Amino acid sequence: MLQRQLLPLRIVFFRKIKTVQLLKRCLDSVVPFFLAGVLFIPAVTVCAQTQPPIYQWRLAMSWPDGTPMLHNAAARFARNVEIMSGGRFKIIVDSPGRHKAPLSVLDMVRSGAYEMGHSASYYYKGKDPATTFFTTTPFGMNPTEMNAWYYYGGGLELLNKVYARHNVVAFPAGNTHIQMGGWFRKEIKSIQDLKGLKIRMPGHAGEVVGKAGMNPVSIPPGELYTALERGTIDAVEWVGPANDIKMGFHKIAPYYYTGWHEPGAEVHLFVNKPKFDALPDDLKAIVAIAAKEVSFDMLSESFYRNAIAWEKMKRQSNIKIRTLPDDVLDLFKQANDELLDRAAAKSQLAQEVVASQRAFLEKAKDWSKITDEDYLQLR
Amino acid sequence: MLQRQLLPLRIVFFRKIKTVQLLKRCLDSVVPFFLAGVLFIPAVTVCAQTQPPIYQWRLAMSWPDGTPMLHNAAARFARNVEIMSGGRFKIIVDSPGRHKAPLSVLDMVRSGAYEMGHSASYYYKGKDPATTFFTTTPFGMNPTEMNAWYYYGGGLELLNKVYARHNVVAFPAGNTHIQMGGWFRKEIKSIQDLKGLKIRMPGHAGEVVGKAGMNPVSIPPGELYTALERGTIDAVEWVGPANDIKMGFHKIAPYYYTGWHEPGAEVHLFVNKPKFDALPDDLKAIVAIAAKEVSFDMLSESFYRNAIAWEKMKRQSNIKIRTLPDDVLDLFKQANDELLDRAAAKSQLAQEVVASQRAFLEKAKDWSKITDEDYLQLR
Repeated sequence: MLQRQLLPLRIVFFRKIKTVQLLKRCLDSVVPFFLAGVLFIPAVTVCAQTQPPIYQWRLAMSWPDGTPMLHNAAARFARNVEIMSGGRFKIIVDSPGRHKAPLSVLDMVRSGAYEMGHSASYYYKGKDPATTFFTTTPFGMNPTEMNAWYYYGGGLELLNKVYARHNVVAFPAGNTHIQMGGWFRKEIKSIQDLKGLKIRMPGHAGEVVGKAGMNPVSIPPGELYTALERGTIDAVEWVGPANDIKMGFHKIAPYYYTGWHEPGAEVHLFVNKPKFDALPDDLKAIVAIAAKEVSFDMLSESFYRNAIAWEKMKRQSNIKIRTLPDDVLDLFKQANDELLDRAAAKSQLAQEVVASQRAFLEKAKDWSKITDEDYLQLR
Repeated sequence: MLQRQLLPLRIVFFRKIKTVQLLKRCLDSVVPFFLAGVLFIPAVTVCAQTQPPIYQWRLAMSWPDGTPMLHNAAARFARNVEIMSGGRFKIIVDSPGRHKAPLSVLDMVRSGAYEMGHSASYYYKGKDPATTFFTTTPFGMNPTEMNAWYYYGGGLELLNKVYARHNVVAFPAGNTHIQMGGWFRKEIKSIQDLKGLKIRMPGHAGEVVGKAGMNPVSIPPGELYTALERGTIDAVEWVGPANDIKMGFHKIAPYYYTGWHEPGAEVHLFVNKPKFDALPDDLKAIVAIAAKEVSFDMLSESFYRNAIAWEKMKRQSNIKIRTLPDDVLDLFKQANDELLDRAAAKSQLAQEVVASQRAFLEKAKDWSKITDEDYLQLR
């Protein structure tokens, strides 16, 4: 039930409230009055004043136009900022079709070439090893746990400790929900089946499966279907039903493995720090809250679209859902822990982020076990 | 991985964008210029104009001052609206200590006595049977599923179809996360153990356990500890560790049952409809997005505080976590389905809400099973 007890109020992110200077300057000559809870200032007043500036900023996103969920999130953020600011803050969203540098969004925001970016933090691990853990970690936090860590467990502060060194203010701004483990032509029954198995799996997860004996390969998206159909590769990790359904993998590789590698990838909004710092407080708050709204909204959209696409996909073919066997998962966990330790050792800040996430995950796991996990099993 | 494909953009909640009238009227006499992406208007201009009104509204919340999470959510919402509006929109939050009517918040907002309210929709089921399902349903959607339904599955539209009849615009505005099933003095091993068992469990869940043979009783919060200690009652359903820890139940009733009855209670912001409709578009958007932010934030805060309190509580005593046995759960499910059917039959709209939730839950369950549930088990 919804209950009542005493607890001191949490201090919120924004504390300073600026009164409207513009209004104050005009108040000398007129007598305001209240009606139905609204303060009215007589209609026509003559005053000398500074007009608020109109901001026209550009945002570079890492995703092509029309990318499901991700482009929606960037566009939604820009629209909400414009509407909430009464048109004082306009953001033009550019895709890689225009800026040509999907994996250099951080650089463009850092330099000020773009005021803003929408990208994935783990794209920049080559530049700074501490950036990689803010997106997602194999066997790590799910979205609910990740958000608790970001907003109440010190995650947001660590994120900005890392990005301040890149001249950037960063906000979580979208989540894919838990991703699926990929399409396999044959079933994986034990560690023996991993040996030499060619899988398209990029990034950190690719390194994990590589350490465990698989052969992670890189193949352009346009050639994946044919490669999988012909057996040039044995498996493909993609995203989840909403994205996978158009690729058609379910028609040629019947085993769909559940995910362990990206339990909810969070994407981020990057803002050039000097430009953000120079914004008035109302627009700073509008940017921060619009980013948070879009983080929440993209998670909801991802869940919804995947649930709908999954139902459709199941009707199209005989898909066999599989969870990797325990010995394989144990091997992956071990490889992942070693890789995390190695990444953490690369910098003081990386160490700090990994330690903070691991400490919170221990507590979060216990609570998720008796709530989310237990509830989904019993209902 | 984060991927790329084509999909038409989703239409967002707010489409109309009003340009700043105030600014436009002053533009005739001056020459604006751009510098570093910011449009500047020369500092001092003389213009005849209407000043934007200052809104001073009052919000009645159902929870006493200092209620964990819930009061924070209402206060956070008010602060964020004030900051994002640059001080043009101030909201004073009143608790029942002042307005004396915690369960009549809807009436006060409907009549305009308060412009806004923060309350639980299911408190008003006596007034309108369709309101009850928007908070939570036993064996129903968890918060992630509920949010997907609200924002992408037609839930928000249904919510406002129901509340429009009460002269109110409603927004989801906070979630408790999955609640625990309560503290029991003795273990429940089968249906036989339910008979006559006295439990403090209010509302719909109380009716469910009542149908199943238990004896739901109503006892004032201040007397609960003593009643449980002396065995006047056998069990107490409260909220979750963050709220329960101060009540001390874990020291006298060692069995802590997992939850089935409130898998994430959503609370709502109510706004008097004519007053909301009369707001300018920027403030409408600020209210809607601040409510959504607080819905997300309270879920994160609830998860975090419960995870921390659970760890602390476990250290304080030897708590035995139990899930109700299958035969008991089956009996509760059956009783719940019958009660839902009966509630749905009370009005056309109630029927529509129940049908919409059940249809989405079927799809959501399948997707949650291979993502959230599977992931929490395998990691």
